[in-house]
Amino acid sequence: NAPDFLFTTQAEHVLDDEDINLVVELIDDAEAAYLIVKQALEAKKSVVTANKKMVAEHLEELIALSKTNGVSLLYEAAVCGSIPIIRNLEEYFDNDLLTHVSGIVNGSTNYILSKMHQEEQPYQEALRDAQVKGFAESNPAMDVEGYDAAYKLSIISLHAFGSRVPTQDIIRKGIASIHPFDFQYAREKNSVIKLVASCSLGSLQDTGVLTVLPTFVSQSDSLGLTINEYNGVLVGSTLADEQFFHGKGAGRYPTSSAVLSDISALQYDYQYAYKKGVGVFNQSKDDYLTVYVAFDHGVDINLSGLEDLQERFIGKHRSYVIGRISCGNLRVSDLLQNPRISVVRIPD
Amino acid sequence: NAPDFLFTTQAEHVLDDEDINLVVELIDDAEAAYLIVKQALEAKKSVVTANKKMVAEHLEELIALSKTNGVSLLYEAAVCGSIPIIRNLEEYFDNDLLTHVSGIVNGSTNYILSKMHQEEQPYQEALRDAQVKGFAESNPAMDVEGYDAAYKLSIISLHAFGSRVPTQDIIRKGIASIHPFDFQYAREKNSVIKLVASCSLGSLQDTGVLTVLPTFVSQSDSLGLTINEYNGVLVGSTLADEQFFHGKGAGRYPTSSAVLSDISALQYDYQYAYKKGVGVFNQSKDDYLTVYVAFDHGVDINLSGLEDLQERFIGKHRSYVIGRISCGNLRVSDLLQNPRISVVRIPD
Repeated sequence: NAPDFLFTTQAEHVLDDEDINLVVELIDDAEAAYLIVKQALEAKKSVVTANKKMVAEHLEELIALSKTNGVSLLYEAAVCGSIPIIRNLEEYFDNDLLTHVSGIVNGSTNYILSKMHQEEQPYQEALRDAQVKGFAESNPAMDVEGYDAAYKLSIISLHAFGSRVPTQDIIRKGIASIHPFDFQYAREKNSVIKLVASCSLGSLQDTGVLTVLPTFVSQSDSLGLTINEYNGVLVGSTLADEQFFHGKGAGRYPTSSAVLSDISALQYDYQYAYKKGVGVFNQSKDDYLTVYVAFDHGVDINLSGLEDLQERFIGKHRSYVIGRISCGNLRVSDLLQNPRISVVRIPD
Repeated sequence: NAPDFLFTTQAEHVLDDEDINLVVELIDDAEAAYLIVKQALEAKKSVVTANKKMVAEHLEELIALSKTNGVSLLYEAAVCGSIPIIRNLEEYFDNDLLTHVSGIVNGSTNYILSKMHQEEQPYQEALRDAQVKGFAESNPAMDVEGYDAAYKLSIISLHAFGSRVPTQDIIRKGIASIHPFDFQYAREKNSVIKLVASCSLGSLQDTGVLTVLPTFVSQSDSLGLTINEYNGVLVGSTLADEQFFHGKGAGRYPTSSAVLSDISALQYDYQYAYKKGVGVFNQSKDDYLTVYVAFDHGVDINLSGLEDLQERFIGKHRSYVIGRISCGNLRVSDLLQNPRISVVRIPD
């Protein structure tokens, strides 16, 4: 019910107006958003955005642009909706040595996995249910393949550690291969499968271990208790132990709330200080992950990268092995690519 | 292992040193702390403190002093240890209309109640256990009577709503009257009893409902899952729905972490902006709470303030009633004072 003259469909009407000192970007198209945000910063307008893909793909360039032009670029709404994770990493966990950040950062996949767990639905059925209820897009690839989570993780890593790996180097597998058998295995261990985005320092200098993987989580852990469309993030630090943040990760009201907080912070010219730096990690090759790998009878599978086998189960219909694999081997292995193979991380 | 010359037991050595621009106050004695903090602010030194009693008792005066002298007064460590609740209320939830903040803000009582629930221990036994394990003081009155929680709630209310009621007006009852029968009742309803500090706006202008009361909480709710010495805080808002923060509420490392974050924020002269104001609430008289009131056979009890009775159970050894009572009646009633009567709030 705002008056007509406040609206336009031409970005230039906003970008060329010298009286406007703030652009709030909330469109869906990441490429168009990038052009608008870039022009806005160059025109010395501060920017608040919720576009995780655009931020993840152009973060260093946009940070440099905002610094050069002396304006702010804030994007709390791009990561976990109403959970103030960026602001907390930036402001509050800016001195205590962080060990890891891991979380459920995508509401669609968490909704689907919750249904698979609670109602023992197969993946396709749970996905359709989520689409009907509006918790998943009609084209769900960004969510279910873990891209959305990878974008968010990349942004989180920069604020947690001052460095991130390029998004395409994140070790990533979505949830589409998860089979009711895998959930059955989880239940027997009082666990549940969650799509967990996790970052930690690698054992070698300037490396990070960034993964978006289905993960076994104890049903009674904070992340296990984060169900349906909710998001939850654990911040592990040397002094403060583990902090847990839980809230709605998406939706118009939670997103509005985060956007409003960013706008409000501009009243005092708030900027992210990036005190930990704006650097680049190499994705670790040498650190090892423990994984459960499951596959139906007849699937052609190459387990050559898997070392230190801990369990091996051969069933009539479905089999699994549990072993350790280096990040380097996992990233290039067929296990992540093959949609007929489940990979579930087992936290150490 | 720092060199001797850095240490002194004379506060004046620090307060009179013009080269020192920050005083970190971490002593136990609230009265002595107040004098030190006051002098420090007057000498134009910023102050970081973890002393909830001192902050709660002198907050308005200390805020005025810090403003007059152009220095910062930060006290994140005073409320819920490593959980950054003050900073989040102040910075992030500064625009979205908050509906309530409620939390488990005292680790000692939560440890005792967790033992009473899990191991069906009576109060005295659980208290001794907590004292042996170092989770409760040898003089536990500040914790178990709810004073510590009331100080923290008072500070939270100011940052959440811009107003607080004087600490002595907070409706408060501790956990010492809780009986295994009450826990049995809770278990039958899949609930657990927690000492919950809660603040919300009253229905009349300039009133607040601030309570520190044993409270029935569903075992599967965020606060129900906050066990042992952990703290958990729910922030309810119109847009962002409920945000939940969970972490260690006390102990030297979590406290250090919060203190370090405050010190770090002083690098950019951070101050709480108190954008919502520094005002005073009257404790609501007209708003109603639903309470469970239990007492042993033979206890002389006056239930005259209790209206709208919903349940009444008379047992051979212990009886209870559930009804509604106005904040005004509850605050002056014998129910809160009498150590032989359990009062457990039932959230609406």
